[in-house]
Amino acid sequence: MEHALPITRRANFAEWYQAVVKMADLAETSPVRGCMVIKPWGWGIWERIQQDLDRRFKETGHENCYFPLFIPMSFLAKEAEHVEGFAKEMAVVTHHRLKTIDGKLQPDPEALLEEPLIVRPTSETIIGDAFSRWIQSYRDLPMLVNQWANVVRWEMRPRLFLRTTEFLWQEGHTAHVDHDDAMRETRQMLEVYRSFAEDVLAMPVVAGEKSENERFPGADNTYSIEAMMQDGKALQAGTSHYLGTHFAKAQNIRYQTAAGDLAFCHTTSWGVSTRLIGGVIMTHGDDDGLRLPPAIAPHQIVIVPMLRDKPEDADVLAYADSIAKELGAFRVFIDRKATKAVEKRWNWVRRGAPVIVEIGGRDAAAAKVTFLRRDQVYDGAKAKMQSIDRAAFVGGAAALLADIQRTLHSEAKARMTASIRTDIHEFGALAEYFGSAEEADGAEPKGWVRTGWSKPTGAALEAVTERLKGFALTIRNAPLDQRPSGKCIFTGAPATEEILIARSY
Amino acid sequence: MEHALPITRRANFAEWYQAVVKMADLAETSPVRGCMVIKPWGWGIWERIQQDLDRRFKETGHENCYFPLFIPMSFLAKEAEHVEGFAKEMAVVTHHRLKTIDGKLQPDPEALLEEPLIVRPTSETIIGDAFSRWIQSYRDLPMLVNQWANVVRWEMRPRLFLRTTEFLWQEGHTAHVDHDDAMRETRQMLEVYRSFAEDVLAMPVVAGEKSENERFPGADNTYSIEAMMQDGKALQAGTSHYLGTHFAKAQNIRYQTAAGDLAFCHTTSWGVSTRLIGGVIMTHGDDDGLRLPPAIAPHQIVIVPMLRDKPEDADVLAYADSIAKELGAFRVFIDRKATKAVEKRWNWVRRGAPVIVEIGGRDAAAAKVTFLRRDQVYDGAKAKMQSIDRAAFVGGAAALLADIQRTLHSEAKARMTASIRTDIHEFGALAEYFGSAEEADGAEPKGWVRTGWSKPTGAALEAVTERLKGFALTIRNAPLDQRPSGKCIFTGAPATEEILIARSY
Repeated sequence: MEHALPITRRANFAEWYQAVVKMADLAETSPVRGCMVIKPWGWGIWERIQQDLDRRFKETGHENCYFPLFIPMSFLAKEAEHVEGFAKEMAVVTHHRLKTIDGKLQPDPEALLEEPLIVRPTSETIIGDAFSRWIQSYRDLPMLVNQWANVVRWEMRPRLFLRTTEFLWQEGHTAHVDHDDAMRETRQMLEVYRSFAEDVLAMPVVAGEKSENERFPGADNTYSIEAMMQDGKALQAGTSHYLGTHFAKAQNIRYQTAAGDLAFCHTTSWGVSTRLIGGVIMTHGDDDGLRLPPAIAPHQIVIVPMLRDKPEDADVLAYADSIAKELGAFRVFIDRKATKAVEKRWNWVRRGAPVIVEIGGRDAAAAKVTFLRRDQVYDGAKAKMQSIDRAAFVGGAAALLADIQRTLHSEAKARMTASIRTDIHEFGALAEYFGSAEEADGAEPKGWVRTGWSKPTGAALEAVTERLKGFALTIRNAPLDQRPSGKCIFTGAPATEEILIARSY
Repeated sequence: MEHALPITRRANFAEWYQAVVKMADLAETSPVRGCMVIKPWGWGIWERIQQDLDRRFKETGHENCYFPLFIPMSFLAKEAEHVEGFAKEMAVVTHHRLKTIDGKLQPDPEALLEEPLIVRPTSETIIGDAFSRWIQSYRDLPMLVNQWANVVRWEMRPRLFLRTTEFLWQEGHTAHVDHDDAMRETRQMLEVYRSFAEDVLAMPVVAGEKSENERFPGADNTYSIEAMMQDGKALQAGTSHYLGTHFAKAQNIRYQTAAGDLAFCHTTSWGVSTRLIGGVIMTHGDDDGLRLPPAIAPHQIVIVPMLRDKPEDADVLAYADSIAKELGAFRVFIDRKATKAVEKRWNWVRRGAPVIVEIGGRDAAAAKVTFLRRDQVYDGAKAKMQSIDRAAFVGGAAALLADIQRTLHSEAKARMTASIRTDIHEFGALAEYFGSAEEADGAEPKGWVRTGWSKPTGAALEAVTERLKGFALTIRNAPLDQRPSGKCIFTGAPATEEILIARSY
C-alpha cells in the first residue's frame, strides 16, 4: 500500500520521525545550530498544550511570574564548588556590544562584562533568590509559582522537539512549611502531568519515582511520567521533584514559624517542555504522517472545498461556510487554497487534522457531508470516505471528535500494555530479550520490562546501572502502583520494589 | 489628605512611578542588571494584554510561529556594512560551556564559538531568512506571521517596564505582493493597536506617521501610537512599519508572480511590548497607586471578608463564596488572608483592583454588599464605601465594570485633549511654553503642541531636530487626521502637515 510519507516507521523510525516533523509542517532547523523554528501548525499544538496546562496550574493555586533570561555566573559557582569536574553546556554571554573594528564586526573588547551571564538552563537559582526575599513568614506559604519560558542547554546532537539547544517549557517552583506539604505538592503535580498526558495528549504514561541515581541533582525524590514510543523506547515526558531543604539552605529561603522560630522551607520544582510534541508524534503518528488528538489539534475539523475554478465554486464555498458556522463550537478551518482537493486532503492527513471534510457540488446539492477520520484513513487501499446527512454530521461532531480522542488513546494504551513484559525476572533473560547495545539501533522494536529489584543504593546501584548500560538500558521509574513479589533481577535477593527497564530517548 | 503611596505624582513623578510598581506588586529589579522580575499581578496584566491582542491578530489572519533566541553575528554583519560607526548594545554569546579551571568557574576556552551569537534584539533578520525559504509563489502571499518572545537590548539606564535590558513583546512580520497590500497591512495593524489601546487599556492615543528621521532603520514609513502620560510626556506605545522591498532585497525574499516573473516581496513589521504596562501605570495611576481598566485587571472584583477569628467568620466566608459564585462571569478573587480587612482593602487599592467588596457580618445578615470603586476612592477624606442590595450588586456588576472602564478612558481622554495646545505657531512661543532642556526635569507638567510644519527633509530636518533637542523635545508623529493650515513653526513657510511636538519617554 502507498503511504503519504516517503518512509515507514518500520523501515527507519528516526528518519520517519524527521519526515513527520517536516511533512506535517511542524518545525524546521534554523541557521542557529541546535535551535528550531516552530511553524504555525507546531506552534498551534504548543498553544493548546500551554492553555490546558496553565488552567490546571491555576486551578491548583499557582500563579505565573516571569524571571530574567540571564543568570549571573556566580549563582552557578556555588553549585560548581560541590560538583567535581563541573562542566556545563550552557550559552555564556561575555559582551554587551558589537562593534565594527578594522572593518570587521566583533564583540567590542571595551564592552566585556565584569561577570559573565548564563542564558538560563533552568531558573532554580534565580527563583530561589527571589523566594529568599519574598518569603518572611509561615503566612507567605505555600508559595506557588510557575513560569513559561525559553531555556538553553547546549546540545551536540539536537533533534527537533526532543532535544534542542533552545526549548520552551514551564517550570513550577514552590516553597512549603514542611516535608508533608511539599511532598503533597510534588505528587499533585505529577498527577496533573499524568492526567494531562492521558486525557489531553491521549498519551498513556506510567507515573513513578526515579531511582536514586536518576534524581535531579539536589532532589530528595524525583518522579516522572514515562511514555512508550512506537519503537518501544521510553520518553520521559515530565518530572516533579521534592527538593527537601537543600535549595532552601543554599539560598537561605527561611520563614518565621507560628511559634516565632526560623525554619527552612521545603521546596519543589516540576516541568514539561516542547518535548511533549515529540511524544505526541511518536505515540500517534503513522506512515501517513501525524495524527493529532482533537484536544490539541489547532484545527479539529478541516473543510476542503473541491474547487474547479467555475461559477459553481460559489455554491460549494457557501455550503462550506454554512457548515463551518454551524460547527462554531469547534476549531474549524476551511482550506480555500486553489489547489486540487485531493492534494489538500493528503496535506491535512499528513498534518494530522482529526476530521477532514470534502465538499463538492453533489454534497452541497444533496445536503450531505463527505468526511475522513484521520484515525481510520484506509478502507483497503483506498481512502475511507464516509458520506452522511449534513444535520447528522453537525449534530454528531462532538461525539465524533470524542471518539477519535478515545480511539487514539486506547490504541496507544493497548500497544503499551502489550509491550510491557512482566515475565522476565533474571538478568540473562533481560539481556537476551533486548540484545546488546550495539544491536539496539535498527533492531525490532522492543517494549519495556517490568520486574522486581531489591533497590540497591550507592556503589551497588552504580554497578547495576553499568550492567544495564551494556544493553543501552536504563531504569525508567518505579511505578506508583507497586506489587513487588519474587526476586531481584540483579541479585536474586527478595524483590522490594517493581521497576520499569527500557531503552529511552 | 493622606494617600496610600508615600509620594505623590506632583512631588516627583519618576519616584511616584517606582512606588506604584513596587507597592502594586507588579515587578522588581533582579540580580541581573537591567532585567526585571515580573510578579504575579504584573504578569496577570500582561497575560490579558497578550490574550486580547492575540485574538485580534488571529482575527486579521495572522499565525503565530517561534524563531530562535539566537542570531548568528554574520546576519548583522551585513547591516553593519551599511551603518557608519555601527555599534549595538546587545548580549553577545561567545562560549557554550562553563568549566572549573584552577578552582575557578569560567567560560571554557575550549568551548569558544566559531561565530558569536547575538541574543535577538528583534527577529527581522532570522524571520527574513525563513521567509526567503518559505515563499516561492504569489500563492504563498500574503505571509502573515507573529511571534511572542523575549528580546534583549542592553540598557544603561533601565526603568521597570519602560526600558529594560530584557523585555517581552510581540513582533509581527508579513510579506506581500505589492506596496498597496503591504501598506494596507501596516495601517491595519496600526489601527489594531489604536483600538486595543483605547478600548482595552482605556489609554487614549494619537495614531500617526513618524517623521523621516524617526523611522525604523530601513523602513519606508513608520507609524506609531503615542499616549500622553500624566506628566505630559509622550510614550510611544506601538509601532507599525512598511519596509518596502529593502529587507526583501537584503534577504532575497522573492516570489514568482502569476505571470511567471520573479519579484521582491513588500514586507512589514509591527510590535508592542511590556512597555504598555508602564503606559497603563502612568495613564491611570493616582496617588493611591495603580488603577486598572477592568478589561486587563487580573481580578476585576476583589472580595475582602472581614474576619475576626471568631465562629461568625464561617458565615461571612460562606456569604462571600456565594456572591463570588453568582459573579462567575467575571474574574473574582476572595482575599482570605488572616490580616485586617482595612489593610487588605488598601492593598487592593494600591494594586488597582477595579471593585473592592468588603463583607462583614452585618452585610451577610442583611443581604447587602458594601463596595468601593477604585476610580472613586474618596468621599472627602474618607473611603467612599457604597452599600446596596446583594441582588442589585450582582445584577449590576457588568454595568459597573463597564462604567469604570469608560470613566478611566474618558478621564484620560479629557486630560489629553486639554493638554494638547493648538495655538502655538511660532518657535519662540514653543520655546517659551516648554522652557529649556535643563529646566525640563521637575518642571510643571507640560502637554503636547500640535502645530504645522512644511515637512523638511535631509539636512533641513536635521537642523529642526537639533533645535528641538535644545528644549528636550521631539516630533512624535503626524496624526492621521490632518488639517494643516497656517505657517510652518520652523520656517514660516506654508504648513503642509500637522505634527505633535512633545517631551517623551
